Amino acid sequence: MSLYSEIVEQPGRISSLLVSQKKTVEKIAAEIQKRDVQYVFLAARGTSDNAGRYANYLLGAMNGLPLALATPSLFTYYKQPPKLKNALVIGISQSGQSPDIVSVLEEGKKQNCLTLAITNESKSPLSQSADFVLNIHAGSEKAVAATKTYTTELMSIAMLSAALSGNKKHWEDLHKVAGWMDEVLKQNEFIAQNAQRYRYMDQTIVLGRGFNYATAFEWALKLKELTYVKAEPYSSADFQHGPIAMIDDGFPILAIAPKGKVFDSMFQMLKRLRNDLSAELVVISNDKKALTLAQMPLSIPADVPEWLSPLVSILLAQLFAYHLTVAKGYNTEHPRSIRKVTETK
Amino acid sequence: MSLYSEIVEQPGRISSLLVSQKKTVEKIAAEIQKRDVQYVFLAARGTSDNAGRYANYLLGAMNGLPLALATPSLFTYYKQPPKLKNALVIGISQSGQSPDIVSVLEEGKKQNCLTLAITNESKSPLSQSADFVLNIHAGSEKAVAATKTYTTELMSIAMLSAALSGNKKHWEDLHKVAGWMDEVLKQNEFIAQNAQRYRYMDQTIVLGRGFNYATAFEWALKLKELTYVKAEPYSSADFQHGPIAMIDDGFPILAIAPKGKVFDSMFQMLKRLRNDLSAELVVISNDKKALTLAQMPLSIPADVPEWLSPLVSILLAQLFAYHLTVAKGYNTEHPRSIRKVTETK
Repeated sequence: MSLYSEIVEQPGRISSLLVSQKKTVEKIAAEIQKRDVQYVFLAARGTSDNAGRYANYLLGAMNGLPLALATPSLFTYYKQPPKLKNALVIGISQSGQSPDIVSVLEEGKKQNCLTLAITNESKSPLSQSADFVLNIHAGSEKAVAATKTYTTELMSIAMLSAALSGNKKHWEDLHKVAGWMDEVLKQNEFIAQNAQRYRYMDQTIVLGRGFNYATAFEWALKLKELTYVKAEPYSSADFQHGPIAMIDDGFPILAIAPKGKVFDSMFQMLKRLRNDLSAELVVISNDKKALTLAQMPLSIPADVPEWLSPLVSILLAQLFAYHLTVAKGYNTEHPRSIRKVTETK
Repeated sequence: MSLYSEIVEQPGRISSLLVSQKKTVEKIAAEIQKRDVQYVFLAARGTSDNAGRYANYLLGAMNGLPLALATPSLFTYYKQPPKLKNALVIGISQSGQSPDIVSVLEEGKKQNCLTLAITNESKSPLSQSADFVLNIHAGSEKAVAATKTYTTELMSIAMLSAALSGNKKHWEDLHKVAGWMDEVLKQNEFIAQNAQRYRYMDQTIVLGRGFNYATAFEWALKLKELTYVKAEPYSSADFQHGPIAMIDDGFPILAIAPKGKVFDSMFQMLKRLRNDLSAELVVISNDKKALTLAQMPLSIPADVPEWLSPLVSILLAQLFAYHLTVAKGYNTEHPRSIRKVTETK
């Protein structure tokens, strides 16, 4: 069972990445600071695109860097790449194979931008097209649904942010992540039992905001890939601008709402969903009030800082998706219709 | 019935916008060219955010401008706005009221960026915080679900692109849009009859790519707001990286696949969905092969260029959502749980 073992090996992978890649990350950060980088232009697909969403918030909040998510079809089909003056071009891909992501980095190089590949394969086409390679060292990932490559991608981005800011406290916090992951993995049995309740759920909404906007997307993607549940991710703000109209009695909502800057906004939304619209709630949080609102509360340690909560929260989401897949009787290793390496143009 | 009358008044609104705002748009374009604008930083929510997705592809493909979609919570909750050096900051909002969108423009002004408001309300807070205001002149929109403010937002963006490129052919094409819209509105009766088939549809996927990635998002949003169908938009590329696993026999897929640069990629996906996965298809296109694949074909005129197809295609999507709302017996004017003006932070 690769999927389950890949979920539980994440604390170890994160720890060794932190040690083995620190020097490389600091070298990359120094090069970024030498250049007049004005924004980040980032290309990725699927799970790696969700890591890109984390980068969007983290590099913005901690490092003042605006981030544009690339639209690869402008490079491949339209052959009209935008002018990337003063951009740092980043490609994220587990396999480093997808031609559309590679073509964005190649164009960045052609336009004399600094280019960075974040990948599990240092000999891949993506790595070969980049000035710098940040190897996520996740080891071979056999299950089609990505888990440990997601958290090692997040860790790589968090390390880059810490290196750019030179904030010692941030590096100290990074060393605590593996311990927090070990803590939440103890909820495995609880999740296995309680996932039964969602055996016949066929659609859901996943809410997250700020740093955990990425977690909402990644939780939804795991559910779609593994359980075939139609799961749509939203920021609680966008959700109010229309989609909330869909919600009626008993509609299941999954939410990531740890303590932090966006907690109040998430909590107000959860109260409205539970008390006014009678929705069903699965909530990941370290706030008691938020957990009390949920039919299925999933807790993370009290001292996880908001900016690192995506690395810890996602393990609970992965376990939820894994056990729901088992409860529904589907294949956890090879979901229908998809393959491990998807090459899109 | 405001919603229906607002849908059919779109050709007229587009035409008068084209005449009344041309000079303003050219003045704005001249100012953009005077400055060293290196990328666009755009803030919007809901329907206006979908207009922003159109701007992402159009300003990229036609004007070489990379575009970053703002993450408003960095400005409001985190109070950590990124450094916006050399950015053109655009806010799009029908009402011009939402505090999060206004705060992005205010920050842009504080950082000496050129700022532009695209709005239906020239005296709104958003307009007051901008260097330039592009008034979409849609007239009062009474239905909660936005229709004519979406197409006038798209038209404003298309005019800005034409002014920036100084391409005469593009201006000529813009003058044909109203006529193409009149053409597709003739399918109203056909859509009213055939929407019945989807009376009990409760979930769907909407596929579009390139310029029509925006159309996929907006079609899905209308369905969520009006019919409470769980509709999730995807680019055909992202869809392959996981979510396609959800699809089984008879699953309804809506797609926008006009002739153009991404047509082949969309067509391959539609063939796979229909022939290999036995999905049900509703297809908007001007290509016979693509229309033949669909259980419900919706056609746009043969000579609509790809870059303007979003302005024409969306009318069919709006009519589909409108008639499905009627078929399901829901309120077309005031969907549950949402209001016309949503103020988020």
